[in-house]
Amino acid sequence: MMKKILVTGSSVEERFFEPLKDLGFVVENPKNLLSEDELSSELSDAEGYLLGGDEVASSKALSKAPNLKVISFLGVGYESFVDVAGARELGITVTNTPGVLANSVAEFTVGQLLNARRKLTKYCNAYARGDQGKEEKQSDIAGHKVGIVGLGAIGTRIAEILVSGFNADVSYYSRTRKPHEETRLKVRYAKLPDLMREVEMLVVMVPDTPETQGMVSAALLKTMPANSILVNTARPEVVDPRGLAECLESGVIQVAAFDGFYESRDHGQLTDQLKSFGTDRLLITGHIASLTHDARDAMATRAVSSLCNILSGRPDPYVAVSGTR
Amino acid sequence: MMKKILVTGSSVEERFFEPLKDLGFVVENPKNLLSEDELSSELSDAEGYLLGGDEVASSKALSKAPNLKVISFLGVGYESFVDVAGARELGITVTNTPGVLANSVAEFTVGQLLNARRKLTKYCNAYARGDQGKEEKQSDIAGHKVGIVGLGAIGTRIAEILVSGFNADVSYYSRTRKPHEETRLKVRYAKLPDLMREVEMLVVMVPDTPETQGMVSAALLKTMPANSILVNTARPEVVDPRGLAECLESGVIQVAAFDGFYESRDHGQLTDQLKSFGTDRLLITGHIASLTHDARDAMATRAVSSLCNILSGRPDPYVAVSGTR
Repeated sequence: MMKKILVTGSSVEERFFEPLKDLGFVVENPKNLLSEDELSSELSDAEGYLLGGDEVASSKALSKAPNLKVISFLGVGYESFVDVAGARELGITVTNTPGVLANSVAEFTVGQLLNARRKLTKYCNAYARGDQGKEEKQSDIAGHKVGIVGLGAIGTRIAEILVSGFNADVSYYSRTRKPHEETRLKVRYAKLPDLMREVEMLVVMVPDTPETQGMVSAALLKTMPANSILVNTARPEVVDPRGLAECLESGVIQVAAFDGFYESRDHGQLTDQLKSFGTDRLLITGHIASLTHDARDAMATRAVSSLCNILSGRPDPYVAVSGTR
Repeated sequence: MMKKILVTGSSVEERFFEPLKDLGFVVENPKNLLSEDELSSELSDAEGYLLGGDEVASSKALSKAPNLKVISFLGVGYESFVDVAGARELGITVTNTPGVLANSVAEFTVGQLLNARRKLTKYCNAYARGDQGKEEKQSDIAGHKVGIVGLGAIGTRIAEILVSGFNADVSYYSRTRKPHEETRLKVRYAKLPDLMREVEMLVVMVPDTPETQGMVSAALLKTMPANSILVNTARPEVVDPRGLAECLESGVIQVAAFDGFYESRDHGQLTDQLKSFGTDRLLITGHIASLTHDARDAMATRAVSSLCNILSGRPDPYVAVSGTR
């Protein structure tokens, strides 16, 4: 009998399965969303599961998978898709793919920083309307102060691009200070209120946790210098929406960019009021910063590599839950 | 009698004149455009002239300026604004300000490269219309091939940003090969046809000369890989407009960005045909890449510094025409 790997979801291309086939596995990849019963049935004879769809590996489904050694989750946030307690009890290893999106999100963020700083979308739209308007002088990034809120994998990559590429004057705030990175990246640490008072451009890139909700508060936003640029590639709610509206209105914020925006169901009219600033002042995209071939390919390669490591009894650097099977 | 400096044009702010005042000069700055007679009259008692307006320092005007030691031209292309033969004959030094725009134009160009590569304007406009559309995967710059046509001050700065900041795989074409820069910048030389066949992104940044007109020809454009990105921050005519239209139509070029565009009076219907691709495919701005406070400030500082050097008998690195007065 062939040893089986189950792959769900449609985002991992066939070519990435080669290392599994080389190990003698047969890979089955139904692309449609599986029900709990279908998943249970598919897992019943699987040794590995690459969870790339929206299925939830419930404790019920896992309990019917006697040979399952490893679930390789495609992405981060596996806790919402894997019954972690169930996996732990059964001795099933869970891996995930942190960090692979960092460069794609960082490049997107720097792109929106340049878009906002040089008003690229505004001027492209103006030209297309046949209205070149009054040409205003903009400012460079070189030699100017940029603050980064959050120095994880993405914030670090943003700092690298801005310092090494653009010669920007970069400070950061992070819950834990990182002296080693300060030396390596040539960035300075500042407390959040100091950072926001000093910088011309603020980049927000912190994880979505209860502590980060509203951390870029209305009170802090108002202390920024006039004509500041704000780029938020984190969850929208990290920035206080009322403070954002007030600062766009007052001119404290000249242009803001968000990847993913406040939902009307949570924020009511405020969402529409903000959108009415239009693309000259507020650049919104629909959570697309990580949506690249590069990130997806790296994620697929990494997820398959973790499967191969665990199934071959080798250590894997991306284990989230250690198993015993 | 006070020694006088004439400044024309309205773009140099008062604060930049301090070094001249420290040398004992009085600075006169009529901001309106002077006629030839007015310029002659203003120059008759001037020792230095910062040419920052659209005046032409004709041989007639210069002949009536017995004390004029130096014309400091604000920008490059002084030949169109100074009668060089006349200045030379009279022994008047002419200086200019090359290179000061390089960083501003380079940052703008990289901004438009990211805008085109990640379709920032397209997605911002789509979101603003309430139409998020189908999310397509884009591609990073890191590890991908970028070609730069022209390795002058601006092309060099673009290469620095793309290599040091983005870890891009950069090749260049230039009339004269630059081995020292290849080592310093970590870029490879390629002949133009080879460059265009190989790269995913092409950045065009060559001077406006008869030789560069149409050098990115229709025949060469067609050899580019499908879905290429083209960013032209040089004069539009460096790129063949019919070739551009054909390649946008065929999909060889996915998105193009131009700063300054083909005039209808020169290219007729083709200009409108191209504009009809819209901002999803063709990003046009009105020659604004150098329009920054940073570039203008650096230019003013440099032009004033050259005046001070020449008037104090010191050598100046930006002399275009050596004088004897």
